[in-house]
Amino acid sequence: MRKPRLMTPGPASVPEDVLLELARPVIHHRSAEAKQVITEVASGLKEVFQTTNDVLILTASGTGAMEATAVNTVPPGGKALVLNAGHFAARWGDICKAFGISAVMLDTEWGQPVDPARVAEALKQHPDTACVMGTLSETSTGTGHPVEAIGKVVAETPAIFAVDGISGVGAMECRTDAWKIDVLCVGSQKALMLPPGLAFVSVSPKAWAKIDAFESRSFYFNLKSARKKMKEFDTPFTPAHTLILALRTSLRRIKEEGLEAVWKRHKLMSEACQAGVQALGLELFSARPAEGLTAFRVPEGFKDTDIRNRLVERFGLTTVGGQGKLKGQIIRIGHMGYSDELDVVAGLAALEMVLNDLGFEVEPGSAVTAAQQVLLGRKEVVAK
Amino acid sequence: MRKPRLMTPGPASVPEDVLLELARPVIHHRSAEAKQVITEVASGLKEVFQTTNDVLILTASGTGAMEATAVNTVPPGGKALVLNAGHFAARWGDICKAFGISAVMLDTEWGQPVDPARVAEALKQHPDTACVMGTLSETSTGTGHPVEAIGKVVAETPAIFAVDGISGVGAMECRTDAWKIDVLCVGSQKALMLPPGLAFVSVSPKAWAKIDAFESRSFYFNLKSARKKMKEFDTPFTPAHTLILALRTSLRRIKEEGLEAVWKRHKLMSEACQAGVQALGLELFSARPAEGLTAFRVPEGFKDTDIRNRLVERFGLTTVGGQGKLKGQIIRIGHMGYSDELDVVAGLAALEMVLNDLGFEVEPGSAVTAAQQVLLGRKEVVAK
Repeated sequence: MRKPRLMTPGPASVPEDVLLELARPVIHHRSAEAKQVITEVASGLKEVFQTTNDVLILTASGTGAMEATAVNTVPPGGKALVLNAGHFAARWGDICKAFGISAVMLDTEWGQPVDPARVAEALKQHPDTACVMGTLSETSTGTGHPVEAIGKVVAETPAIFAVDGISGVGAMECRTDAWKIDVLCVGSQKALMLPPGLAFVSVSPKAWAKIDAFESRSFYFNLKSARKKMKEFDTPFTPAHTLILALRTSLRRIKEEGLEAVWKRHKLMSEACQAGVQALGLELFSARPAEGLTAFRVPEGFKDTDIRNRLVERFGLTTVGGQGKLKGQIIRIGHMGYSDELDVVAGLAALEMVLNDLGFEVEPGSAVTAAQQVLLGRKEVVAK
Repeated sequence: MRKPRLMTPGPASVPEDVLLELARPVIHHRSAEAKQVITEVASGLKEVFQTTNDVLILTASGTGAMEATAVNTVPPGGKALVLNAGHFAARWGDICKAFGISAVMLDTEWGQPVDPARVAEALKQHPDTACVMGTLSETSTGTGHPVEAIGKVVAETPAIFAVDGISGVGAMECRTDAWKIDVLCVGSQKALMLPPGLAFVSVSPKAWAKIDAFESRSFYFNLKSARKKMKEFDTPFTPAHTLILALRTSLRRIKEEGLEAVWKRHKLMSEACQAGVQALGLELFSARPAEGLTAFRVPEGFKDTDIRNRLVERFGLTTVGGQGKLKGQIIRIGHMGYSDELDVVAGLAALEMVLNDLGFEVEPGSAVTAAQQVLLGRKEVVAK
């Protein structure tokens, strides 16, 4: 028997009751029932986003939400400041390029958090920036960026602050309104505990002013059309409405646990995982770890694929490696959404055993014990 | 008890075994299993499309496939000929407008099929047309257009022929290669028997030549990136892969029944539904009915919403009304995908009873009998 354990930083595990919603007979997407579902979901999303702004639903991957943000908020030839600190942050730049947006890339070493002071400096140099494009949790490096501090900086300028919260929202603290996030992009397949297929964008009044000032260069991702329809709890095109129906159940779960408790759980899982990995003598990759995943360097003399393949073969446990220039250098373990303390403990136990099998010197139980110390509140964790 | 019966022209009913696939634990979208699924699905889609061209998978509504077609095949300032004969055909024009494509609208009265001779004439007047944008089954009017004949006309010019087959493919005969369709757009929630969330585009070598000649103005809908990834049975972004997994089951069902048999079933259901509706003295809306739905005029003195609401209240049977300028004027009954002869018979019986309740003179059983005559092969059907 090989029990599947999906410990990837998205798609992440989906709770059984949410999966069962997906097996229900399909209803019509313009029915009274569908409208009622969208009404409840719209309110639940605002709670999870911690916003009173509009939250719009798109049928797309998270990247679709990023494209919608760029193409609607920055006019052709306009300027964006991209807080480039990883594979997904760089995607903001690629999107800008496709739409003729001039992207100023503020590079930060992968694994390091973006420095808000450098953002302030860059905005002084580029006062015509329409949109600052950042990331809450950079999935490629496992880094959480100081979004609150960056938000303060951007709020003092005419620019808006767009944040890729795709793998971050629901896994780590994120207060859209209090932190002055004008556009927040989120995907369904991470801490929102759904399969992929839906993306969400919240839009502030400051962002709407930018959006309303010019014609969008996209029909499918036109946020003005989406806003108009959302006023009637509807969408411009046939949405992936069975996922929206399932989202209702996910959001009810989050509401029942309480958003602060959800954040706390993720923080605890993250710290436990970090402690466990470090107890094995492995090096964390990020200087400011995100809370939905843990990235560590592949120990010298070992291949990431050997470790990851063996995790799958022996324990049915799926992790991911590095992307882009980090290919082969790191392993990333997801602990977001439908994931609890024991999943982390089990994941660490598997890692111990697999490393042992491969000849890496491991004290069996050491990672697990270190994680338990954290879970029992007996150990403070310092990332590096 | 009210048993739900979804007789809308999309979303359409999903078979139980396909629904159960959606309730399976989520796997990783880059795993060997996911790749194997995409490999099988890619081949199944080619069979259903009747093509050897690339078929690409997008995570989007059907409209996303249309946007991908326009933005990738027609350069900025280029020209498209839109075969404008309904609400969804008009959408081609809206998409062109958003992307600065000059759209020549060849208007045809709603409910009438596009005349291939007029397409030939328009292409003579506009020899610089890059793309002719048409429709296989216009869902808003229930009309099937003569795509084969139009394809012949377009093939003789430098223009490519893009067809919105969203509600048509799988419900009516469509031979992409033999009919010279360069780009075929399909959605998941119609005759492919899935919930909404996926869209597909097939692309011919003639279309690739156009696409390769300039840079796409979209990042999310960049077909060149999708082609590159599809060569490895992968997608550029996290796809709605649980829907792809379920699609495998749908495609296996189509393969088992046989595509020709599937088309024949739809033709029979369509003719039976037309005969039933006409037996009640109701007027079909379309001069060339599509085979996945039947549209008829609301009888004088009656309100479409009264009829449709009562169908829901009494029988849990959902239909749709008219869109745009046809609002209130027609009722559309879907019989596509997971739909059989008895569904049509039951739908007609419900219509008889509801019309009777509302005071419309009905001979009980007349629609059902007429439909049965067709199903038994005893009656030839003439649309008008």
